[in-house]
Amino acid sequence: MSTILKHRIKWLRILIMASLVAALFIPSLVVFADDGGPTVESVNGAVQGVSLDLNTLWLFIAAFLVFFMQAGFALVETGFTRAKNVAHTMMMNLMVFCVGAIGYWATGFAIQFGGINFVYPEISSSLPAWSFAPVTLSNWVSDKLVSPLLIGGSNVFGLDGFFLNGVTLSSGILAFFLFQMVFMDTAATIPTGSMAERLKFSGFVLMGLWVSMFIYPLVGNWVWGGGWLANLGRSIGWGNGVVDFAGSGVVHMIGGAVALAGAIVIGPRIGKFNKDGSANTIPGHNISLGVLGTIILFFGWFGFNPGSSLGFTGGLRNLAILAAVNTLLAGAAGGMSAMFYMWWFSKAKKPDPSMSVNGVLAGLVAITAPCAFVDVWASVVIGLIAGVWVCLASVLLERLKIDDPVGAIPVHFCNGLWGVLAVGIFANGNPDTAAWNGISTPVTGLLYGGTTQILSQTAEALSIIVFVGGLSFVFFKVISALGLLRVSAKDELAGLDLPEMGSLGYPKDWEPSSTALKGLPGEKGKVTSVPVPVD
Amino acid sequence: MSTILKHRIKWLRILIMASLVAALFIPSLVVFADDGGPTVESVNGAVQGVSLDLNTLWLFIAAFLVFFMQAGFALVETGFTRAKNVAHTMMMNLMVFCVGAIGYWATGFAIQFGGINFVYPEISSSLPAWSFAPVTLSNWVSDKLVSPLLIGGSNVFGLDGFFLNGVTLSSGILAFFLFQMVFMDTAATIPTGSMAERLKFSGFVLMGLWVSMFIYPLVGNWVWGGGWLANLGRSIGWGNGVVDFAGSGVVHMIGGAVALAGAIVIGPRIGKFNKDGSANTIPGHNISLGVLGTIILFFGWFGFNPGSSLGFTGGLRNLAILAAVNTLLAGAAGGMSAMFYMWWFSKAKKPDPSMSVNGVLAGLVAITAPCAFVDVWASVVIGLIAGVWVCLASVLLERLKIDDPVGAIPVHFCNGLWGVLAVGIFANGNPDTAAWNGISTPVTGLLYGGTTQILSQTAEALSIIVFVGGLSFVFFKVISALGLLRVSAKDELAGLDLPEMGSLGYPKDWEPSSTALKGLPGEKGKVTSVPVPVD
Amino acid sequence: MSTILKHRIKWLRILIMASLVAALFIPSLVVFADDGGPTVESVNGAVQGVSLDLNTLWLFIAAFLVFFMQAGFALVETGFTRAKNVAHTMMMNLMVFCVGAIGYWATGFAIQFGGINFVYPEISSSLPAWSFAPVTLSNWVSDKLVSPLLIGGSNVFGLDGFFLNGVTLSSGILAFFLFQMVFMDTAATIPTGSMAERLKFSGFVLMGLWVSMFIYPLVGNWVWGGGWLANLGRSIGWGNGVVDFAGSGVVHMIGGAVALAGAIVIGPRIGKFNKDGSANTIPGHNISLGVLGTIILFFGWFGFNPGSSLGFTGGLRNLAILAAVNTLLAGAAGGMSAMFYMWWFSKAKKPDPSMSVNGVLAGLVAITAPCAFVDVWASVVIGLIAGVWVCLASVLLERLKIDDPVGAIPVHFCNGLWGVLAVGIFANGNPDTAAWNGISTPVTGLLYGGTTQILSQTAEALSIIVFVGGLSFVFFKVISALGLLRVSAKDELAGLDLPEMGSLGYPKDWEPSSTALKGLPGEKGKVTSVPVPVD
Repeated sequence: MSTILKHRIKWLRILIMASLVAALFIPSLVVFADDGGPTVESVNGAVQGVSLDLNTLWLFIAAFLVFFMQAGFALVETGFTRAKNVAHTMMMNLMVFCVGAIGYWATGFAIQFGGINFVYPEISSSLPAWSFAPVTLSNWVSDKLVSPLLIGGSNVFGLDGFFLNGVTLSSGILAFFLFQMVFMDTAATIPTGSMAERLKFSGFVLMGLWVSMFIYPLVGNWVWGGGWLANLGRSIGWGNGVVDFAGSGVVHMIGGAVALAGAIVIGPRIGKFNKDGSANTIPGHNISLGVLGTIILFFGWFGFNPGSSLGFTGGLRNLAILAAVNTLLAGAAGGMSAMFYMWWFSKAKKPDPSMSVNGVLAGLVAITAPCAFVDVWASVVIGLIAGVWVCLASVLLERLKIDDPVGAIPVHFCNGLWGVLAVGIFANGNPDTAAWNGISTPVTGLLYGGTTQILSQTAEALSIIVFVGGLSFVFFKVISALGLLRVSAKDELAGLDLPEMGSLGYPKDWEPSSTALKGLPGEKGKVTSVPVPVD
Repeated sequence: MSTILKHRIKWLRILIMASLVAALFIPSLVVFADDGGPTVESVNGAVQGVSLDLNTLWLFIAAFLVFFMQAGFALVETGFTRAKNVAHTMMMNLMVFCVGAIGYWATGFAIQFGGINFVYPEISSSLPAWSFAPVTLSNWVSDKLVSPLLIGGSNVFGLDGFFLNGVTLSSGILAFFLFQMVFMDTAATIPTGSMAERLKFSGFVLMGLWVSMFIYPLVGNWVWGGGWLANLGRSIGWGNGVVDFAGSGVVHMIGGAVALAGAIVIGPRIGKFNKDGSANTIPGHNISLGVLGTIILFFGWFGFNPGSSLGFTGGLRNLAILAAVNTLLAGAAGGMSAMFYMWWFSKAKKPDPSMSVNGVLAGLVAITAPCAFVDVWASVVIGLIAGVWVCLASVLLERLKIDDPVGAIPVHFCNGLWGVLAVGIFANGNPDTAAWNGISTPVTGLLYGGTTQILSQTAEALSIIVFVGGLSFVFFKVISALGLLRVSAKDELAGLDLPEMGSLGYPKDWEPSSTALKGLPGEKGKVTSVPVPVD
Repeated sequence: MSTILKHRIKWLRILIMASLVAALFIPSLVVFADDGGPTVESVNGAVQGVSLDLNTLWLFIAAFLVFFMQAGFALVETGFTRAKNVAHTMMMNLMVFCVGAIGYWATGFAIQFGGINFVYPEISSSLPAWSFAPVTLSNWVSDKLVSPLLIGGSNVFGLDGFFLNGVTLSSGILAFFLFQMVFMDTAATIPTGSMAERLKFSGFVLMGLWVSMFIYPLVGNWVWGGGWLANLGRSIGWGNGVVDFAGSGVVHMIGGAVALAGAIVIGPRIGKFNKDGSANTIPGHNISLGVLGTIILFFGWFGFNPGSSLGFTGGLRNLAILAAVNTLLAGAAGGMSAMFYMWWFSKAKKPDPSMSVNGVLAGLVAITAPCAFVDVWASVVIGLIAGVWVCLASVLLERLKIDDPVGAIPVHFCNGLWGVLAVGIFANGNPDTAAWNGISTPVTGLLYGGTTQILSQTAEALSIIVFVGGLSFVFFKVISALGLLRVSAKDELAGLDLPEMGSLGYPKDWEPSSTALKGLPGEKGKVTSVPVPVD
């Protein structure tokens, strides 16, 4: 085997082996089952087993942390909107998970990963095509490849695994499903922020299905499911093809593009913009909840970014740890630069809480794609820029008369874009990233002499803008025409809680009627264990 | 060794070995200590060590997640009750852990697991009796079995390990203690919901001791501590005996049965029921907290259910992952079906937040027992049914004039029951569950031809209803007779915070008196670092 | 090699080996790369790799949990202060992480650990000096020791690794950096509590830099970075030198000493003390948030204390598990004793929520140093004492006219002190702690015949009081003289949110102006997808 080929598969071997071992189900401690004592082969099998267990455990824990981000989104969106819409905003953030989970199980996972083992173009006849996918699930349908929908030979749409049917349910695939499910949900929850305080609940349910069942899996396939964007390196020589470690593009730009299309179609909240075109600030009702949500999101991001190593042995561990440190520093840097920008340059000259919070989130979004590919100093630079960029983008958005109550678009769309491009600039040629997407050289950006990686990254950004933004614009136009997108002006003014949800977020304490109080024992009376008399 | 025997012990070997290794304390890296370089035996020992480490790490992390559920319970119960009882409800949910931890350490763990190594009936003289317990702690009291209290030869009450005394404190036992402690606490916190807004704080403390020190460990022993319910398979041929992976019965039905007995004895809140028998809706004061609590509970459930594999190597890993995916989908399905049920069929025709939340929790409770035994599609079915059942059960409870402010009984008792029975219906004969409770065949429900498993499951449900419900009814009657159960009507109407806790949950901001303000510097004055002059 | 030397290095070998392996980067599954099948050596290498992976994974997860404590601090401090300062208090707790992370990256880590491999006095010429550090990062600067600043031969100030420069960035060092970073931040966030409701935001930023860049790393070096306190055992025979498992001293007393100095210099809030010297109780505005924060802190403490084992294989696992169980019981015991103390002995005779919360935290702080060194029963005793001590210390502090709004000093300073001393009293000679700080005997306190450990512990406490307290007093005096410490009396009375942050914590819902509402569709009108007309 040539050195180059060896190199190419270095990165992939662990996951491939993991899948094979999972398929065969070799118990880790099989060594004890042999009557004749351990042999080198039996011990070797046991070590492989434990390595698989460890990789899976990490994927598992990371998935839980990402799941918990749902609480962060719920609090940030609710805290930074008004009290009269609390029940509506919290419920959107809870139910988007319920709706999305069922939708992703039904069709999403199949579309995104149903053709993962089909990779075009092939490289070598001595190795199966799927060796070059960043993730390989070799026992999907008992190793029989099911061809995805192809355009020009490229995988653009998976056709296998609806309702997880037809999939040999090794624990490896299930763990991977769990992890991808919570990632999808992160994208699906972003648009509830930009359309908050005026989105009909039925329109929200349809949006949740749109993201989980179709649009996220479609473009997610192209980057992470063996699709054409991931293969731009081998097909036309653009770096390693699209490289997006944890999804600045796949998760945040997709969610942000849906959020942008939705905000444009649904229109601004009543009163947001004045006759003269100026914008009013509509403060959120509860900074405590908003900041708590931000810390929860930061906590969950330690699953989101490092967890995207998909394993924790050897080189995968190195990638995970670098991702964690870079995530921490970029988030901190984003918060600092946004805070000081507002403190020094805004009209109010104060360290504004809501922009500081968005600065932290912007830094986190921006480092999501490059976190495992850049030096520690670069993560600080990326975060510092993100914190200022989110402030500027927020102003720009208001100039464009787009109303985004919680800043979902500046945070996720604008800084997702920054993160995708940052890979093409700062990627440092880390040897642990050699063989990414089947290209033997490591991921290398402009600053380190890689001149074509930025082209792939630009292709990812444009694809998301055109396909996710464009198709979602049409989608929202249709449900708007059906009268399912926006509540009536009357309901919006009253607050959405009673008309849409039937419950206020913060009702006054209910008190019993005066007749119910008749016959109650007096001040010194003691209510005993029989039911209180009610009249 | 016959094939059948081999089969039987496959499932148990890992834990048994883990305990033995823990007892001997073989450091994982002992291979480095040998001057003569590694041998097959030394490397084999090292692999065993790392496997034990990994299993323990998983148990450990799962325990932390379960601990965190305490925050979820606190928020759900407080959010869905009234503002005038906030300090009281939050404090119950914090202190139930403090009281329960000390109580479980003192007596609970000993009663539940003090006889775990004693199993009746024995199967084979060539294997020690304890080989057939689902969990084996072989070095408990230096391998010397201490007989529990026996009735008809069966373990019904452990008699060893009070205050962890007499227990060789290997780290295995301590990790197991940690895990079981947080499980117990989940059960103990359920009744604070059904008795909220009227329970005396001293009565609450006694209830916490009742659950942690006695009633939970007693019945928990029967299912998980080697007791008679777990052995119904070998004693009278009912399937694999009682099978309850993570405690739909042991935790949720026990907690729910105490909650039910308590709600009956303490009686409804003043004004809950009208003269004509109709019920009033008493809305909770803070939907944000309630929904946040629900997401925290969902997050913690990923420790609760998958963690009940008690390990993460080989087959244990497979069980954990299947449990996680099923937990996710059942919770999502429960939320969806409850939401749509309320939206389409309730009087209000709205996607009611509080019932949607309870639908999520109902799905999670229902999948808790079957999560590692059923197919993915079945978990969706179980969750969908749970979401509707919790709505119907809530109505039923009001018809019975039982007042349960947060729906603890419909969620935990009613859906715990559904989960226990669902094992007997949907268990799919997963080979990883062979040898469960010492029965060589895997756990198999009605749909897969197992006709007797449902009998064991019914026995678990009835035992909990009769023993936990019955004894707790007597317990609450006694403390009610002592005047320790319910606050006075006056205190209930005023809110429990000041009379019971001495503090309001949400006091108005305290302001200094006017005399304190005299002599302060004026508008432009600056307070320096010396203490502000107070007059 | 003599038995004593063997003993000495037993404890250290795993970490040393881990670092070496990290330096060499042996992929765990290298066995598959050999064409000729596995050998004993290749399998042995793989086992070493997986052990390193597992240790790192634990460090990693523990770091995330500690990070999440930031949310707990934010909620406790905000919940127990007034609504008019909510945005200010929450923002301090978010930004202290952002500011601190950048500061610690710039200088803190270098000062604390830049000389870790230099240990004085050396023991044996056959082993490198660094073998006796509790943590060894052998490949720091390619194994070339960079001498720290020395006084009398002892390491008092690291001089290497500013901005992580000059450090070979193995994943081991990065994971260690991550872990130490979040520890530092815990200390930095404590003073925001004692100075809440009157601290200028610019003064807060300076305080964050003071702690993260200088004072915490300085004294942290002395105990954990190979400094003179850690070596008191070998230099003058005081037990094992200073032993502080997870930082009752290093984190909590340091943070508490800064908090104490700050509270003294900044002075009490307006109106806290009356003319006659009596104190007013200023209740916090939101018990829900305060209790939620406490549970989050408890959850995070399971990373804080057990995570300080820095690994999870063999003896490290044993220490981690003992630490977890002791942490759980001490926290519970602290909560119980504080609750009952207030219930039985306070004037109000109620189970006061805020003191119960502080009792839980006091128990957790007190067990932080001794958690891996004491028996389970001792952790209960330590916790029970902590719960009463925090109540008494709170009264004492008010007698001294020191105003500490959230009890940061009684909890962290006073109980940190108790925890540091408790090691010298209760340490049980656990053999897993032999070789700690290069002393062959295990850590042993007064009750087990170790008469000199208490001297080392006292030295740690005094050093923190003198150096951290003293230098911080000077620091706060200086920024106070510069007018950067305390807000004006006018701003304090109005609440800090608008004057300092520009945003209220809980603003009333913004409503559109009447002109904005003109021309809106009537009751039955439907707002379509074009923007709402604004006039």
